[in-house]
Amino acid sequence: MPPDNRSAPEPFAFSLRVYYEDTDTAGVVYYANYLRYLERGRTEWLRALGIEQARLARETGLVFAVRSLAIEYLKPARLDDPLAVLTQLDAVGRAQVTLKQWIERGGETLVEASVRIACLDVKKMKPAALPAEIGKRMSLNPH
Amino acid sequence: MPPDNRSAPEPFAFSLRVYYEDTDTAGVVYYANYLRYLERGRTEWLRALGIEQARLARETGLVFAVRSLAIEYLKPARLDDPLAVLTQLDAVGRAQVTLKQWIERGGETLVEASVRIACLDVKKMKPAALPAEIGKRMSLNPH
Amino acid sequence: MPPDNRSAPEPFAFSLRVYYEDTDTAGVVYYANYLRYLERGRTEWLRALGIEQARLARETGLVFAVRSLAIEYLKPARLDDPLAVLTQLDAVGRAQVTLKQWIERGGETLVEASVRIACLDVKKMKPAALPAEIGKRMSLNPH
Amino acid sequence: MPPDNRSAPEPFAFSLRVYYEDTDTAGVVYYANYLRYLERGRTEWLRALGIEQARLARETGLVFAVRSLAIEYLKPARLDDPLAVLTQLDAVGRAQVTLKQWIERGGETLVEASVRIACLDVKKMKPAALPAEIGKRMSLNPH
Repeated sequence: MPPDNRSAPEPFAFSLRVYYEDTDTAGVVYYANYLRYLERGRTEWLRALGIEQARLARETGLVFAVRSLAIEYLKPARLDDPLAVLTQLDAVGRAQVTLKQWIERGGETLVEASVRIACLDVKKMKPAALPAEIGKRMSLNPH
Repeated sequence: MPPDNRSAPEPFAFSLRVYYEDTDTAGVVYYANYLRYLERGRTEWLRALGIEQARLARETGLVFAVRSLAIEYLKPARLDDPLAVLTQLDAVGRAQVTLKQWIERGGETLVEASVRIACLDVKKMKPAALPAEIGKRMSLNPH
Repeated sequence: MPPDNRSAPEPFAFSLRVYYEDTDTAGVVYYANYLRYLERGRTEWLRALGIEQARLARETGLVFAVRSLAIEYLKPARLDDPLAVLTQLDAVGRAQVTLKQWIERGGETLVEASVRIACLDVKKMKPAALPAEIGKRMSLNPH
Repeated sequence: MPPDNRSAPEPFAFSLRVYYEDTDTAGVVYYANYLRYLERGRTEWLRALGIEQARLARETGLVFAVRSLAIEYLKPARLDDPLAVLTQLDAVGRAQVTLKQWIERGGETLVEASVRIACLDVKKMKPAALPAEIGKRMSLNPH
């Protein structure tokens, strides 16, 4: 996607396949299901940084929650398509993170999104500071 | 459905509509999504008995969980179809409940299921006795 | 929501309930599932205008597809919450429509979205002019 | 699972991960979502036999549809769990196929299912004979 990001690091890539469950009667992937793909991509990006969300929630009571999202649907994906979800760090704040994410099929961009994620205390559902170690890992491995 | 249940009480009926999200690229409702419909039917049956599951979980730590399910797919539902989910008590045990459920479109049965549900302590994820009051309400209003 | 839309017509309201299927292990509605709610709201808005999408597809080969979406997640919805999806026409173009949509619980806005929808020829998956009759109905009943 | 199937061939194994989208507010995988996992397992089993369902539908008008299913939920899966979906041919008929499927986490069986699948002419939604080549491939590679 971002052809102007010449100096940007390589995005993190996660591969998946389109199954029946993802499609709708128009013959394409249902629009909400791309958000499931994007979330899988973010989860695997975090895992690649050594962050398991189930463990994070258990040990610190912290979860990541999407605060806002803007998404462009450029071309539809279809049953059996092999897709790649690309994730790239845009900005790290005190209690939130902004990511660029896009989905490709054979090098062609199908969907582009900008996603703002907050760190939350799951008990209170209130913003919480991103643990320093996590912010550091993201910045050092910005993908 | 059950033509032999002559003496059975009226089943509990819940109406819903098929949306794009429910369908797949074969042009019909995706097979797993009928289980979502059945669960909505059970939830509204419980609500009609005065049982709100969110409150039940909060106040007693109890949740209902499906232990087993047998389902026949007779005819497909399609986009925009108005459906009715029918629920009928089959048996109430100490810690579990068996239900007959079926889904109709204009009087025609599309799907038939038998569902066994256990009462669980959500913290331990272990079987727990059904509260007496709930068992009583189910038996007195068997639908 | 939009406090500045004083002269705007009443939005179209569609009511729904949060079920287990909609929630996730963080205890709230999963972020992609609000898009399912928005789509149900749009479908019922179209139905109130006399437009059945399944029939439209069958008779004209036309479908509506989301081209872009911006969404803010303000507060989480939870199991058993009764929600209202509000839909308001923003603009009608030759081959696309822009809508404001938001989701409320008891008058409190949980989610706000702006959605751009295109009219597509489903066989070619290419933009098609919105049928004049449909554009007229939308403009006369802008909700 | 099936400890008595001593002479049975090795089941076909497909690995997946539990994401937020799969879980519900009880902290476990939502019961309908195991059917999505089973369907992914069947799709990959077919792909391993050289059968791509999207191509099959396009070239022959044939789809596979679940006619009945019996499932036991033994233990819950949770966020981040790595799971294996196991698929084993039970019987091949003229127009339908029966499979045993189960889901494991680290060798422990969480879910067991028996699934009957019919070959359908997607236009008429009527049973159709399984193409001889496909029946042969299944029988020779019964997994």
